[in-house]
Amino acid sequence: MNRKVSEAVIRRLPRYFRHLSMLNNAGVKKISSRRLAEQMGLNASQIRQDFNCFGGFGQQGYGYRVETLLGNIKAILGIDETHNTVIVGVGNIGRALANFEGFAANGFVICGLFDTATELIGREVAGLTVRHPSEMKEFIVENRVSVGVISARRTYAQSIADEMVAAGVKGIWNFAPIDVTAPVPVENVHMNDSLYVLSYKLTHDADDTAPDNEE
Amino acid sequence: MNRKVSEAVIRRLPRYFRHLSMLNNAGVKKISSRRLAEQMGLNASQIRQDFNCFGGFGQQGYGYRVETLLGNIKAILGIDETHNTVIVGVGNIGRALANFEGFAANGFVICGLFDTATELIGREVAGLTVRHPSEMKEFIVENRVSVGVISARRTYAQSIADEMVAAGVKGIWNFAPIDVTAPVPVENVHMNDSLYVLSYKLTHDADDTAPDNEE
Repeated sequence: MNRKVSEAVIRRLPRYFRHLSMLNNAGVKKISSRRLAEQMGLNASQIRQDFNCFGGFGQQGYGYRVETLLGNIKAILGIDETHNTVIVGVGNIGRALANFEGFAANGFVICGLFDTATELIGREVAGLTVRHPSEMKEFIVENRVSVGVISARRTYAQSIADEMVAAGVKGIWNFAPIDVTAPVPVENVHMNDSLYVLSYKLTHDADDTAPDNEE
Repeated sequence: MNRKVSEAVIRRLPRYFRHLSMLNNAGVKKISSRRLAEQMGLNASQIRQDFNCFGGFGQQGYGYRVETLLGNIKAILGIDETHNTVIVGVGNIGRALANFEGFAANGFVICGLFDTATELIGREVAGLTVRHPSEMKEFIVENRVSVGVISARRTYAQSIADEMVAAGVKGIWNFAPIDVTAPVPVENVHMNDSLYVLSYKLTHDADDTAPDNEE
């Protein structure tokens, strides 16, 4: 894995992972890149090219073994590792995230919740005690927290991110409706984007959308 | 707009919209496709090609007027229209969505909440009374609801989608962790995908990610 992998390829990996998990659960053992392409609305040469970024996984003409491919993609995504995670902001989104089943299943162990609201501090949410953000830095260091989730208000998001990085987190998942920047990887989640796409499709005839061979 | 527009182009429109909103708020009046490309990490010819799908918006060499471009993209996305919207499933995610500021700002008016939980029915959440899903069909017809949001459990998601479509919704925004299918546009939101991308970046040297010229 010495070559640089493009952002677009990285963003397709979760889709491969989801689709292959589905196939694996359905008992499918082998699949060709052509068949995979049809099912996923991609083109076969792109799939082969994507997998080649990570060393191949299959032999042309023989197809891929679903379980092996799935295991490889899982390892590449790093979701077989464990990341201690804190959530800052225990409002509606923070609460939904604290209860989000996707975390633990993918190695993200929520170990701390933080909020400035006096009525929340000391209370239990999703089995964890809510703490004041002034305790965050020490908590991150002591618990070797590597991921910080931000579900606080827009105005605090960047300063929370800065503090998280100063305390040693290695990545940030941001839900505040403003892009935060950091010297570590950041995923700014744009809920609106998906709503905009839905809006587009609602206002245009479904026939306006061409089959997707590009993304 | 007689040409078919590819899914990949549609998915880039929200990014243009966000970036141009930011420029417009910052008082930027004009921008070239080259400058826009640099700022967004895309390439200029792709931007021109994307905008050409919708009839252009600018003259080569003269750049784009930010405000006009923003207005055009807004109109294309259809977020200048109003969509009555219901949410089914008033758990943590449903509650976060009911309070989501992105809805009203983009023309999605939440007018009904539904949940099977006896302790929730009749209670107010985000200013609306929670109703039993048995009332949903009639409610959708009477209130000319065009969008259904699903934040219920995985096992109920598809049957809720079916009922929504039978009652007349024109689009579905699904947060249940399973893809639903429908004869109307559906956006299945995969929260995990963004977490997987973060996981990838955490486990690989940041230098492994190449600048993105593709997506």
